[in-house]
Amino acid sequence: MSNVLAPWRSPLSRALHRNRSQPFSRYLQLATITPEGYPANRTVVFRGFTPQGNKLKIITDVRSEKFQQLHHCPWGEICWYFSQTREQFRLFGSIQVIDAHSPDATGQQWRLETWQSLSEAARLQLAWPTPKAPREPNPEAFRPPPPSPEMPLPTFCLLCLSPQRVEHLELRGEPQNRWLFWLDEENLWQQQGVNP
Amino acid sequence: MSNVLAPWRSPLSRALHRNRSQPFSRYLQLATITPEGYPANRTVVFRGFTPQGNKLKIITDVRSEKFQQLHHCPWGEICWYFSQTREQFRLFGSIQVIDAHSPDATGQQWRLETWQSLSEAARLQLAWPTPKAPREPNPEAFRPPPPSPEMPLPTFCLLCLSPQRVEHLELRGEPQNRWLFWLDEENLWQQQGVNP
Repeated sequence: MSNVLAPWRSPLSRALHRNRSQPFSRYLQLATITPEGYPANRTVVFRGFTPQGNKLKIITDVRSEKFQQLHHCPWGEICWYFSQTREQFRLFGSIQVIDAHSPDATGQQWRLETWQSLSEAARLQLAWPTPKAPREPNPEAFRPPPPSPEMPLPTFCLLCLSPQRVEHLELRGEPQNRWLFWLDEENLWQQQGVNP
Repeated sequence: MSNVLAPWRSPLSRALHRNRSQPFSRYLQLATITPEGYPANRTVVFRGFTPQGNKLKIITDVRSEKFQQLHHCPWGEICWYFSQTREQFRLFGSIQVIDAHSPDATGQQWRLETWQSLSEAARLQLAWPTPKAPREPNPEAFRPPPPSPEMPLPTFCLLCLSPQRVEHLELRGEPQNRWLFWLDEENLWQQQGVNP
């Protein structure tokens, strides 16, 4: 069933379309859990869906904290607020971490294609000095030679979040509207309108 | 030391001021942990700081999932992205849950003042049918008599997040700028510039 378009894909596509004039409508917040068991939260960029499976693509650096966190606890919840249409999507699911060493051939293909679709500015960041290390004083360190647009740097990591539960909240309704979507035991999507 | 203005307050106030034309600049994402140990994430509204202690005020309904989650694990991380100035604050800390039964007198005073500062629309939501229960078909249920502007409803709960670690990221820098702020063992704020 994983290749069928999930029922929350249509309202999410509509939100992306209606908010497309705001570049930050592709920014979302990803919550994870630290190895010590505390919540962590940061803004990341939506990089599209995987060719199959309704999975949301996000990129990161293997030197980032979320990379470590996801090795420890491979779950996340995305919170995605669209300010123009005033609606929110929450997407909870497991996260597949695909770095240079991942054995999964399909995952490696997705990682390669995602790298090739990045802007040069985005690729350059993967060649910057270690994130969150004491500030590198030499500005030249942030102007490395442009990485190959074909072959991903070893620091490049693809994250694929596979939603199991999705919530859609429309603040504009009267009063407001909220829907839940979830995968049942047979891996089929169910949905229900609930109170806001 | 808790009454001293923390060093991250100044850049955060500046961000709030510079983004004030966008009402959604007071919306932020709060990550918590479910009783089962999974991450949860949702948009909430910043309701200002407590009179002392650099704590961020958020309101919720005692019938909400985050209320249950915070009783189980009283920690959260706020992710706050300002789209106009392109900067992000992450604020990690413990969360004090102040409902009608909380014994703390100062907390009750904050709860009362926060209730009294709400709009009628915000107060009304606390009188709506149970959040996330199957959708109530009668629209009248969402038009309850206006609650007293003086006395909080029993469903009304104040959350106060007390930051222990704050990260500020400016995407507009060349390349970008990131600062960390943290409370040391003596409860004094430290700060350091780090790589973006």
